[in-house]
Order: sequence, then C-alpha cells, then structure tokens
Amino acid sequence: MTRTLIRGGLVVTASDELHADVLVEDGRIAALAARGSDTAAGWTADRVLDATDRYVLPGGVDAHTHMELPFGGTFASDTFETGTRAAAWGGTTTIVDFAVQSVGRSLREGLDTWYAKADGNCAVDYAFHMIMSDVNEATLREMPKLVEEGITSFKLFMAYPGVFYSDDGQILRAMQVAGGTGGLIMMHAENGIAIDVLVEQALARGETDPRFHGEVRKALLEAEATHRAIQLSRVAGSPLYVVHVSAEEALAELAAARDLGLPVFGETCPQYLFLSTDNLAEPDFEGSKYVCSTPLRPKEHQAALWRGLRTNDLQVVSTDHCPFCFTGQKELGRGDFSKIPNGLPGVENRMDLLHQAVVDGHISRRRWIEIACATPARMFGLYPQKGTIAPGADADVVIYDPHATQVLSAETHHMNVDYSAYEGKTVTGQVETVLSRGEVVIDGRKYTGRAGHGTFVPRATCQYLS
Amino acid sequence: MTRTLIRGGLVVTASDELHADVLVEDGRIAALAARGSDTAAGWTADRVLDATDRYVLPGGVDAHTHMELPFGGTFASDTFETGTRAAAWGGTTTIVDFAVQSVGRSLREGLDTWYAKADGNCAVDYAFHMIMSDVNEATLREMPKLVEEGITSFKLFMAYPGVFYSDDGQILRAMQVAGGTGGLIMMHAENGIAIDVLVEQALARGETDPRFHGEVRKALLEAEATHRAIQLSRVAGSPLYVVHVSAEEALAELAAARDLGLPVFGETCPQYLFLSTDNLAEPDFEGSKYVCSTPLRPKEHQAALWRGLRTNDLQVVSTDHCPFCFTGQKELGRGDFSKIPNGLPGVENRMDLLHQAVVDGHISRRRWIEIACATPARMFGLYPQKGTIAPGADADVVIYDPHATQVLSAETHHMNVDYSAYEGKTVTGQVETVLSRGEVVIDGRKYTGRAGHGTFVPRATCQYLS
Amino acid sequence: MTRTLIRGGLVVTASDELHADVLVEDGRIAALAARGSDTAAGWTADRVLDATDRYVLPGGVDAHTHMELPFGGTFASDTFETGTRAAAWGGTTTIVDFAVQSVGRSLREGLDTWYAKADGNCAVDYAFHMIMSDVNEATLREMPKLVEEGITSFKLFMAYPGVFYSDDGQILRAMQVAGGTGGLIMMHAENGIAIDVLVEQALARGETDPRFHGEVRKALLEAEATHRAIQLSRVAGSPLYVVHVSAEEALAELAAARDLGLPVFGETCPQYLFLSTDNLAEPDFEGSKYVCSTPLRPKEHQAALWRGLRTNDLQVVSTDHCPFCFTGQKELGRGDFSKIPNGLPGVENRMDLLHQAVVDGHISRRRWIEIACATPARMFGLYPQKGTIAPGADADVVIYDPHATQVLSAETHHMNVDYSAYEGKTVTGQVETVLSRGEVVIDGRKYTGRAGHGTFVPRATCQYLS
Amino acid sequence: MTRTLIRGGLVVTASDELHADVLVEDGRIAALAARGSDTAAGWTADRVLDATDRYVLPGGVDAHTHMELPFGGTFASDTFETGTRAAAWGGTTTIVDFAVQSVGRSLREGLDTWYAKADGNCAVDYAFHMIMSDVNEATLREMPKLVEEGITSFKLFMAYPGVFYSDDGQILRAMQVAGGTGGLIMMHAENGIAIDVLVEQALARGETDPRFHGEVRKALLEAEATHRAIQLSRVAGSPLYVVHVSAEEALAELAAARDLGLPVFGETCPQYLFLSTDNLAEPDFEGSKYVCSTPLRPKEHQAALWRGLRTNDLQVVSTDHCPFCFTGQKELGRGDFSKIPNGLPGVENRMDLLHQAVVDGHISRRRWIEIACATPARMFGLYPQKGTIAPGADADVVIYDPHATQVLSAETHHMNVDYSAYEGKTVTGQVETVLSRGEVVIDGRKYTGRAGHGTFVPRATCQYLS
Repeated sequence: MTRTLIRGGLVVTASDELHADVLVEDGRIAALAARGSDTAAGWTADRVLDATDRYVLPGGVDAHTHMELPFGGTFASDTFETGTRAAAWGGTTTIVDFAVQSVGRSLREGLDTWYAKADGNCAVDYAFHMIMSDVNEATLREMPKLVEEGITSFKLFMAYPGVFYSDDGQILRAMQVAGGTGGLIMMHAENGIAIDVLVEQALARGETDPRFHGEVRKALLEAEATHRAIQLSRVAGSPLYVVHVSAEEALAELAAARDLGLPVFGETCPQYLFLSTDNLAEPDFEGSKYVCSTPLRPKEHQAALWRGLRTNDLQVVSTDHCPFCFTGQKELGRGDFSKIPNGLPGVENRMDLLHQAVVDGHISRRRWIEIACATPARMFGLYPQKGTIAPGADADVVIYDPHATQVLSAETHHMNVDYSAYEGKTVTGQVETVLSRGEVVIDGRKYTGRAGHGTFVPRATCQYLS
Repeated sequence: MTRTLIRGGLVVTASDELHADVLVEDGRIAALAARGSDTAAGWTADRVLDATDRYVLPGGVDAHTHMELPFGGTFASDTFETGTRAAAWGGTTTIVDFAVQSVGRSLREGLDTWYAKADGNCAVDYAFHMIMSDVNEATLREMPKLVEEGITSFKLFMAYPGVFYSDDGQILRAMQVAGGTGGLIMMHAENGIAIDVLVEQALARGETDPRFHGEVRKALLEAEATHRAIQLSRVAGSPLYVVHVSAEEALAELAAARDLGLPVFGETCPQYLFLSTDNLAEPDFEGSKYVCSTPLRPKEHQAALWRGLRTNDLQVVSTDHCPFCFTGQKELGRGDFSKIPNGLPGVENRMDLLHQAVVDGHISRRRWIEIACATPARMFGLYPQKGTIAPGADADVVIYDPHATQVLSAETHHMNVDYSAYEGKTVTGQVETVLSRGEVVIDGRKYTGRAGHGTFVPRATCQYLS
Repeated sequence: MTRTLIRGGLVVTASDELHADVLVEDGRIAALAARGSDTAAGWTADRVLDATDRYVLPGGVDAHTHMELPFGGTFASDTFETGTRAAAWGGTTTIVDFAVQSVGRSLREGLDTWYAKADGNCAVDYAFHMIMSDVNEATLREMPKLVEEGITSFKLFMAYPGVFYSDDGQILRAMQVAGGTGGLIMMHAENGIAIDVLVEQALARGETDPRFHGEVRKALLEAEATHRAIQLSRVAGSPLYVVHVSAEEALAELAAARDLGLPVFGETCPQYLFLSTDNLAEPDFEGSKYVCSTPLRPKEHQAALWRGLRTNDLQVVSTDHCPFCFTGQKELGRGDFSKIPNGLPGVENRMDLLHQAVVDGHISRRRWIEIACATPARMFGLYPQKGTIAPGADADVVIYDPHATQVLSAETHHMNVDYSAYEGKTVTGQVETVLSRGEVVIDGRKYTGRAGHGTFVPRATCQYLS
Repeated sequence: MTRTLIRGGLVVTASDELHADVLVEDGRIAALAARGSDTAAGWTADRVLDATDRYVLPGGVDAHTHMELPFGGTFASDTFETGTRAAAWGGTTTIVDFAVQSVGRSLREGLDTWYAKADGNCAVDYAFHMIMSDVNEATLREMPKLVEEGITSFKLFMAYPGVFYSDDGQILRAMQVAGGTGGLIMMHAENGIAIDVLVEQALARGETDPRFHGEVRKALLEAEATHRAIQLSRVAGSPLYVVHVSAEEALAELAAARDLGLPVFGETCPQYLFLSTDNLAEPDFEGSKYVCSTPLRPKEHQAALWRGLRTNDLQVVSTDHCPFCFTGQKELGRGDFSKIPNGLPGVENRMDLLHQAVVDGHISRRRWIEIACATPARMFGLYPQKGTIAPGADADVVIYDPHATQVLSAETHHMNVDYSAYEGKTVTGQVETVLSRGEVVIDGRKYTGRAGHGTFVPRATCQYLS
C-alpha cells in the first residue's frame, strides 16, 4: 500500500474551506484530519506533499470536450493524448467527451469508435456522452443499453440541419426515452433552421467576415430554442441540460423554468464569460479564432452570465474545448464565415480563468469549485468519486498556488493548437501539482504522467434527479 | 338616391353608446344626429326603420372563415352562398375567408380559384386572406403583388406537417417579406411536428376516441409555438397575428410580448370561450363534433381567455367557421381521431354568443362590438368602411333586440351542417334586421337578401401598425 | 336656437378619423355628416367655421391641475381665472382640479372653499377631485355624500408625512369606502417616510442643490409605493388610479397588475415624457424650475413611459399643473432643495406637446386624443359629455392646425408664471379656435371667452368599472 | 485528551453522504476516514459509538426560537433550560434566540437581560439575535458594537404597531447601518398597520374565533411587506432575511428578488409546511393552539413552500418556537382572537418533521441537513463550527435512526407546553444519541446532559455575503 500525505494546505471544496491534511491510500482519499489535531500530527506517509500556503482542490471535471472531433472536413486538433495532457496541466483530472453517432449508423458503432480513440491514450480519466445524429426507432432502443453501460447522457442539436440536427419530434422521442431511463438530454439550443436562412442571406449580401457569424446566430434564436427545449422536456417528463448558454435571453428562459421547480440545467463556458463579439470583429480574419456556436455575444451578456452563475440559474462551467488551428483549419472559412470550423481551445485554461473570477469578485472560492468540479460530477453521475475531496473519493487532487501569476499564451500552453483564445491575458493563480487517482501527474509544474494512465469511467445517472 | 333612416335606437360602437338616429344615403352612413335634436327631428327618408328599444350595431366582421375548404378528403359543408347567408342571419356582414395555395402551385392560382368560388354567390361582403402552403422564392415574390391587390394577410401553419406546414426558415422568410410590405402574418401556432409524434403514440396505444385529440394537442405545445412565432417575428421585424388561441399558456406568451410593446395580436373563438374538453369527451363519437385545432381545452382556460379579452391581450373573436356534418364527414374519423375533419360551425352564432357574454358580465357592450366588429376591421384594413357606424362608413347595420331569447339549434340555424355546437343553449339577444351596404338583407327575421349582393372588398394593410 | 357648423375638417376622436362636418345646436353636438353627403351639403348654420386642412378635436380634459394650491407657505401662481384661460389657449376645455381637506377639518369645508375659489372665475368647465388629508371616521362617512354630489374621486398621499400623508390603515379604510360607492382612489405613490430619511441625510451631507431632489426620491421608492397601493386596493376590493407615474419600475408594477385584470390605472405627465434629471441638474438654481414630485427621472425612463402609453399600461396624460414663479417662490428653496415648492406649469402645453409626440412617432393621432381627452373623461365620469365629438356631447371643440409651428416660451404663454418648463422648444401644431359648450372662446388665436363662462360639472363614477 | 469514535454510520452533511468513521478529540471533530480504509481501521478511542445502520448528522441549528419571551402579558412557557433540553432531545444542538430591546431602553440592556436568562441554564449552545423595538439615533449607534460582540443580526417588525413595529424610515436607517457593518436585518414582513384595521373590523363584526386570525392577516399583506422590505434593502444596500415566510405570494417576491441576484433570503417553519388554516378552524377554541404570525395558510400554500425549499428560494427552516400553554395562556384570547398569544411549540420536532419530508419525497437527504443545519449556520456566521461534520468543527453530532417510527405527542415530548401542534402524527425517524461539543447529552434516548453545558456562541457575520 502506498500512502501519500498532503500537508498544510487549505482544502477547498464546493461546501467547505478546511485547514486539513489529506491522506491518500492507494489512489483514494482515505481521510482528512484537522490541522493541529493529534490525529493529523500522528500521520505518516510514503510521500508527503507540502501544501503550505496552497489550496488543495478536487481535480477539475470538464463535462464538455471534443477531442479529435470531425467537423467541416477537418478534425479538432487535440487528440485524446494531447488534450488530456493539457487538461492535467490545467488542473482538470476528468473530462467527459462526446462520442458521435454518424447518420445511418448505430450508437454502438459510434461509441466503440470513440472508446478506441481514447483507449490507452489518456493522461487523466475520461467518460463519454453520446451525440445522437439520427434519432430513430433503432437508436431509441439503444439508449437504455448505453445508460446501463455508463453512458448516461445524450446530446441533441437544434442547430446544424443536415448534420447533427434533430427535429422536434425526434427530440421529443429521445426525451421520452431519457426520462424513462434516467438519461439526461443535453441540448445545443439554437434555431438552426432559421439561422441557416440568415446565414444564406448574409452571404448573399457579401457579409463574409467572421463577425457576421455572431450577427446571424441571434440571441433571440438561442432563447427561442432554449424555450422550446424546455417545453418539449415538460411534455416528455424529462430533465434537460442546456449546453454552452451564451445569451442573457436564453438564461432568462432557464431561470423561469427553474423558478417553477423544473429539472432544467444550464452550462456556460469561459469564452462567454471572458470574450465577446469584440473578439469576433478582430481584423485580418483573426476573428475566426473566436468562431464557435453558440457564438460570442456583446459584452453586456457577460454580467448576466456571471449573475446566473451566482444565482445558480447556471450550474456548470465547461469548456466546449474543440480546437482548430488558425493556419490550415480556421482558414478554411476565409471569404465565407460559414465554413470556419466551429470551436475554441480551452481545456487547459478553465480552472485558472475561473480562479481569476474569484479574484475579480464574480464568484466565491467555494462556488469556483462547485461549478468546475462538484456540480459537473453530480450532474453526470460521477460524484463523489470525482468532484470533491472526501474520504472514499478518487484521489484526484490539485495543489494550487493562488498567488502565482501567469500569462496565458500559445507559446506556453500544452494544447495542440497554434493560438490561444486568451493570448496575453495575465491571470492570478496556477496549478502546481496534480494527482490523478493518487499518482502525481503534474509535479511542481513538471509533467510526470503518461498516456494510458487515464481510464474510462462509467457514469451513474444525473444525481440532481433523486 | 335612396335614403333610409334608423330611428330611435341606441347606437353601440366600440367607442360609444349614443341615443342617435342614423341616416343612410345610397349604401353608406351619411349622418348621425342626437336623438331629440332639431336636426334629427327634421330628417326624412324613403324608408324608416324603427329601432326603439333596440341596439343599432355595426355589422359583424368575422375575420376567420373557411367556406368550402377542402380538408382531409372532404369539403367544409358551407358554400360561400350558404355560409354568407348564415352569416347575415347572425348579424355578420363581412367575412374574411382564406384562399388556399396548393403545394407546387402559385398563390395567384389559389387566389383565383377562391375568387371564382365566391364570385356571385355571397349574401354579404367578403375578403380574403391567403394561406401559403409552400413558401419558396416564387411565392415570396408574389406576396407584395397580393398586398397591392387587397390581400394583405398571409396565413402560415406550424402544424399539419406535409399539408400546410411551414418550417421556421420558411416562416422567417415570409415574415421578412410581410414586414417589408405591410402584410400581416397570421399563424396557426401549434408544434405540429411534436404533436404528430404524440398522435402516433396515442393511436398505437389504442386511444382512438375524439377526446384524445384534445389530449395529444397539448397546451404547452400551443404555447411553445406561440412563443416561437413571436421570436421569429422579432427577428424578422414583422407583426404577428396568432389565430384561434385556446390555451392559457399561449395567451401568457402573447401578454408578455405585448407588455414589451411588440406588434403581436391574438384571436380567440367562441368555441374556446363556451366549450371545453368536456364536450370532446361526449360519448358515442359525439365528441367528434367538437374536434378542431387548436383543440378545446379544460374549462379552467375559459376564465383566462375572458380575462385576455378584457385586458386586450386578445383583440379579436372570430369563428374559424369550418363546418363538417356529423354524418358522413365527422364520421370519417371513427376509430381514428386523427382522421376526423377539423372544424366547427359558428359563423351564425358569434354575435349572439358574445352578446350573451355581455349579459353574463364577461365583457362590456362596447367591448362586444370592439372584438367582433371594429378591431377585426382595423386589424385587416377594412376600417372605417366596415366595423363601425360613422359618417362615411358602409351602411352595414344590425338592429339587435337585446331582450329576445332564443335557443341555438341545428333545427333552426341556417348554416349547412347537421348539428349545432351549441345545441339547446338559450341565449338572450337576437338579430332582428340587417343592412348590407344599405340593403335590407334580414328584415324582421326574414331573409330578404340574395346571392351575389355581397362583393369582394380589397383590404388595406393592418391599421394597428401606423 | 343657435347653430354653428364646422365644415371641412378631419374629425379626430379616440376611435375615428372622419372627414365629416359637425353641426352644433345650442352648445351641444347635434350631428355629424360625411363630407360630400347630401345631408352635409344641405346644412346651414348661424355661424360656419372653416376647418379645411385642420383637425377638429374634442376639447382636452386635464384631469390633474392645482390652481391656487397652498403649498409650503405659498400658493400656486395660477388662479382659476388665469389657469383656465391658459387651458383654453392650449385647447383644454375641462379641468379636474383638487379640492383640499385641511387636517382636522371636514371634506365639506374643503370642498366649499374650492367651489368658492372657482365659482364665477373659470373660462372653461371644471370639476373637482377631493384630497383627503385626514382619513378618519367622520371623513369616511362624508365620502359617499361627495360621490352623490359629483365628486367621485379621492386623492391620498403616501408621501408628505405630516402634511397630506395617510398611513396604510387610512388608505385601506378609504379604499374600502371608495370600492363600495364607486369612488376612485387616486394615489400619490411614493414612500414618503423613507424619502424623508434620505432627504434629511442628504441635507446633512450638504447636498442642497435641486438635483438632489431627484436623487433622494428614488425610483425604487415610487415603485414600492405603487406596489403597496395595488396590494391594498386588492385587499379592499377597490379600483386604483396612480397619478404622475414617472419611473419605469413603477410602471412595471402597474403593467403586472393589469395583466392580472385588476382595475388599476396609471397617469403620466408631459414633464416625465419630455424632461429629465438633466433639467434638474441645470446650474444657478435653474434646476428648481423642474422640482416636482414624483421627480423627473433619468432620460432612459422616457422610452418606458412612451411604451406604457402605447401598450395602455398608462392610460392618461394630465399635467399636474402646479406653477410657482422662479422669482420669489422657487427661490424659497435656495440652500435647501426640500423647501422648493413642488410643481411645474403645463396646462397650456399638454395638447401641443402630445401632438408633437404624434409628429415624432411616439403615438398615433387617435391615441393622442384618447390619452388627452377621451380616457380622462371616461376615467372620471365625464364621457361622452366631455372627451369626444359625438351627437349629444357638449360642443367642446378644438380646431387645430397640425402644420403650424410655434416656440414654447414664457414670453408668449398665458399661464401666470415667470418661466416655461419648455422654454425655446419648437413644436409643430397649434390650437386655432376653441369652442366651449358651443361658445367660441378662442377665435383664430384671439381670446374671446370670459371668466364665469366655465361651470362646475358634477361627475359620474369611473366608467372603466362597469 | 478524550477521543470518541463514531463508527459505521452514514455521515450525511449538506454536501455529502459518506460511509465514514468520525473521530472526535476534545469536543471537536478531528478527522473523518473512509470506511474500510487502513486509516479508519487503525483508529482507537476512549469511547466508541456504534452507528451501524444509522445516520451521523451534524446537530441541528434552529435559528429562530423565543424562550421565555414576554408576549401579551404572559411568557413563552419554555425557559432556556427546558427549551434547550427539548432541543437536544430533538437533535438540535444550537439555538439562536432573540434578545429583546424594550422601547425606551438600550439594546445593551435588553441583551444583558437575555444573557442573564440563558447563562448557566442551557443544555446546548446558544447565540442571540437582537430585536430592535425602538430604532433611534442611540440604538443605531449601538448596532456596530453588538456586531463586534457576536450579535450580528437584528430583527425588525413591520407588524405589531405600538409594540415591536418599526416604520419604513426606521427600517431604512437600521438597514443602512447593518449594510455598513455586515449585520443582517431579519424582517417580520406583514403590513401590521393594515392588518390592525382588518382585525378591528373583524372583531366589530363579531368574528372572534381563532380562524379569523388567519383571515385578517392576509397573504397579500405578507407579500406586500416582503416586497417593501426588499425594496428598502435595495435602497439601503443591505442584505435581508425574511423570517417565517408562509404565503406563496410572499415567496414569489423573494424568488423575483433572488433572480435579480439580490442578497435576499427566506426562512419558513415546519408549521407552514405541515399545518394549515384547517387547524386554525378546529372547533372548541382548539384553533388557538395554531395561532401564530405570520398565520397558517390554506393547504395549497404548502406545495409552494416545498417547491421554494427545493429551488432554494427559501434557504432555512427554523421553528419560531414560542410555546404558550393552551390552559391559561392561549385561553387569554377566548372571545377575542387578537388576544391569543402568538406562537407554537416546535424546537423538539423540527429535525424529525423534516426527515419525514425526506421520506415523503419533498426534499433530499442532503437538502434536509442543508436547510436545518448548514445553511442556518452559514447564514448567521456559525459555520463550520456548527452545521456540518468536518475536521475542525465542533463535535455537535446526532446519531439518527432513519427507520424508527414515533408518534408526536404532548405526552411524550420534552417541551414545557401542554399540547403538541402535531399531536398523534406518526413520523419515521428518530434521534438516538446526541453529542454537544463531544459530550453525549442524549445517549440512546436517555438525557445525559445538564443545564449549563451549553455556552454562548458569538457569531461572525452572514457568510453568504462574502
């Protein structure tokens, strides 16, 4: 048996801030003891990590990543290997990625493909959601089997007609099955049918610059789809998790539903909290670096999103990490914004950006851990194995230096992408050491992990529904 | 020149209740004079109609009828001849019916077909809205021409996939054109895609009775579609008129939009105010008589609709008159509620039922005339030619006995349909005499009109938008 | 019998715009006839007024004036003589002023005092509301008698502790009596108890300038009082009319109540629509000219008020005319904003400013007449005697030149006050000729009226409650 | 050093459910270790408590009790001795009682009086809020001193004019001071001025039965006061905690404020969740047992309150424990409901009733602990010393048998009052053993504590504001 002792830090979880020492036995948290207690004083270990003046945090849970995602004729530039290594660097020890069903194929086939992509390559633990591109009798029948296998959430798209799009009938059917089996429907809520009309009209008017991506994907059409998804979930009697909420008007729909006590949840992403349409409007096609959907919104929306995180109308901050290099990938959309691959890098930056939000006064320290670790774990059936520091939990632990400063940059980040969405931004706070199931994978800002350490984690159903 | 004088009545319009005599010259209102004034006393006429103890009302404007509508392999049982005659009997002197574009054909062709159906057959004046079954580049180009021709409103359907249904992109495009030309989009707001899933599932469970028609067409799905139509109209910058609102939740969406000052309007129908799912549940397939879409709702919704009429969140009461005989027509749906032709008779009953609402205290006398005459006329560009009694207006006048009582019944009504939706209901108030452009078409409860008296009325654009 | 004929104008009422000639017999409207009809052509009269290219409007009804009001040790500078003459110049032919009960005295005594002030002095007709400064058993018993006498509305204050203030128990009792007798409670809705704390604190900090008047009387405290008045009226089962709404937040409370179908009404004033805290902040004590309560608000509130007028969440525009000269009166508050007499002149400007709003596109022509003439008349039981042009109505008529331009100025206005709140503002449209009960009191911009022509008009109860 | 080990239980906190052993050193929680870990296996102790098949809970925190409160000429029947002993029996190990300032006296004097009442008498720990009956310059100056002393919350009353009542100006001033010092204003939110009018009118009508207590204290008047308190707190820039919310309409005001992100909090009590106006209407003056203010509401409100607890629009369940014996105390109000002492017993029943709510499916197990232990502790500055089981916390621990059943009854309860508000109600779950700072005060349903063990706990400021 290996024992590791983390001594002298401030343990911060979603619920507590404790001066406590943390004892790890064989990959799991064995015990916590109050600093200064006889019990703590009596502890010995094979390895002692000094966390004096540091935070001791649960490893981050990023519930929305797209490693190696095929999109628009290219692939997201991070593999499971590079992407999970970057996650570790950023203090994230679990990702939930999306297996994709291809139209005309089974969920099984899509899932197996993604199992194969990740297997043996990951630096930290991973799980999968299932993207359903083709809701039909056969795939509906597959859903309960996947739930049993630990794939307990299913993503549908109200956008991207002809690719991922499901119509309202398909959505309703999938929600009915999900509601019956404990599965959780995740929704990309934008009215893609209407948006495609506006895209076509914009291009016809010669509006090809990346900033028009933001103009045609209107906030009202995100709000509309959000409202529609909520109503369909009420008809189906199922819960609903809306991904990457970016518009104040969409958030208002979630808030109204939650006031009614409906099991409706919302996620936002760092890019919506820290970036805006100002970035989309950067000249020389630089705006393409910020093309994602839902799109970045005018700055005024940021305050609403922060408020939503404080009022718990938004519960989760994930990254929607889906990087495409500027050179050769984003450039596919020169002269036609609709051809720019949609997505931003971020898996490495999330924990730090949200700590900056603590420093800036947007959220409390505990809320930081709640939205970035505990709630995503609970939402997707991983708690308390992941998302907290408690006796019995996996020893996914981050020793965090809250006083260090760093400058975010493509030159120093570990994601496999040629730009940073936050290039040059100085943030306070930095990951120092990371344990994944008790193994030190980042050691004083040296990578000591390995591809294949990370294993697939089957998930229970959403823990907010019991 | 012919002069007719209506003497001694209480002239009730949307704005006023006046003891005034009304002088008609050659089919138009020439003047009103205060009872007892020297001017009134001095008036002479070719014909004097005594309206003592009677109301003198503007003829009703029914903005939603479907004479001879082809539906589900059969036709609405009232022709323009029988339907407009029944309208006259009921105190309605103008109908706005719906010309139907067939999929693959032009608006022009549909409109010409309906011109031909009505021409020479109508007892009272008529106008047309245009149903667009196929929004495409060609039909979008036709819209402005129709507006010029006096067809200034276009109905779209979010229900009936495969028949009348338009997707959100088509709706958005039509709204954009309408917004630019002053045309008004009328919307059947139900999420037909989702409803069709529920229909299929209900039938698969053996739920074939007419009452299941009401259960599958859920109030939440009417509210959802209403919300969506509103958001699309905001994106397009166009006004919106939602037809046959039946659900409290849908009304709430309209109210919220109107609080924002948006040009959003709502219509309800007598059947939603006086009937309920209790009727749909009548045994022996009698429920089929009450099958229409949007469906009848549980009784509790009635209070909300009355309140909406009082708060002006609903502005118009039309009939959606679309009669199908029980024998041979409604019966098509025995064993499968989805095959029951959708629609109810009502063009003859509207003015009386709404007067009953005055008697019952739901609305004031002036509001009765406003929702049944003035506002539909303004909404669809007919005011003040139609919808009021004022110098210069068409002399469409009803002399109404507010104290008479009558029993509504198929045995006595004049609509060409073998049942009454209000069979046996006693109401207070009855039409006594009706003038259409100065001609007496109902004379002391005798029909003195003729097919062909009624002429087509080209309409201006919606008068609530200037 | 005298007959006057107004020929060739466009008659604009709240409901209609008619090319009609208007025939006046002995002070009342006898008849209207369509331009070009044989009937119109046949009319003769003692006097014919040519209204070609002019509007023919009902005389304005200003439901909120304070002639000769004692306030803060001085008196409003317009007497009933000067004030009603100015009203006539501005196209207003009826005012409803406020009789004031003094603390410790009866309503009767206050009313008789005001009868005496007005009697024989008015250029146009007038009526009275009753200000209750002292709600007690005796004054509650007087209320029904006043209703019978035609004083059918009672104003209470949630502001001005120690002067006009009623506590919530007094308000509730008065509402109960009003609800039972058809009386209408008018409310000055500001939390005066809280405001007085802020006033004291501001003065203690040396904040004495007029602009602090606007800062301490916070919008939230107007909204709070508005909400409270609504809830008390619900408990009492009475209607409620909130005077001089200036804050968007207060308007939101009214809108919410009206969505519920509650009999709650709201008035705003031209100063809130055209002026703002920018005026209050004018240097050299000029801001004192704009001190009134509720106070002027930041400019952003104007858009909300215009929207409220369009959505009918606000129904009436009155002036709250309560002029105090800058010299000698407003100056009482130099060095202490709380000593500035509260009030602005405006009775002469209302019709013109609201016509400018038509020109500017804020409201329609008919809505202008509705909020300025018809609705105040209905609200306070004067319709159709006042507020419209219809057979039988009093011949209070304005011939209005919509194309004239004028510059508002103290140099040219007829109010007895040494400044104009709109000094230098150019507006389009001007009153040309005014009839009061058939007598020409302004004749082509000459005053032809006389003190004493105007008579007291007893009022029926609020006509929105039947 | 004494070590106690609690072995084999399921530790339930607001955030976690852990199979963990709990080690207590000298009155504080020293450590938690995962069941089955080597660490846990190695632990020894002076005393081992077996918690197999039991929950291990943090001791309850009842943030609203009134021991020995003088009210209406009598005193609440529980002394600090009897009341805190009953609390211990019910699994509550901390109470926050209310020191009362008398009108005309200082806060200091009131506080010292209450210190003296409690000192040496309590079975469990206690803290104090301060009731301000007389907000004035002197008492406002005392507030910051009390905050420093650990009295960090101040209760004001919008009800009880002439006794505890503060007017809106006093409230605003107190809020300003509280906002500046971190103090939290607790509000009894009912419009007492209006209610007293209704009370007087009811009594005048001969409506003297206890049920009229419920009728006159209208839900709308609780909602009104809640709204007003919120607006005043916004003006003052202070947080607000509304006590004993009972009406759905009041809850809606809190929810709306919280949607805006305002620091507004709400408490409800078991009596509002489990009892209703049906109880108030019990014959033979039995209804008097249920007289408290805010009053019990019709049953329909219960569902709204449960929903509010789930949506976190209500955060705390306290008891407002304020017992008066039926015989001799409640009887003071025979023939006049307004003379019935207001209050119910409940300090012993809270934890059990809320566990029943878990069994009934209203709330989750963790939410039970959150609303009864963790949140009241955080709200009033006691966390993590109180309200959770974590290293370093006070060892206030309850071993709870979730499967036991018991019948609530005055015959078996330990509160000093001659009736139970829940007489005869069977609940599932029972307190078995209770530790207060490591001392066993209830040992397998035997009382082993002593008066004087409980000590005063000075409190930090509200922890939701940082």
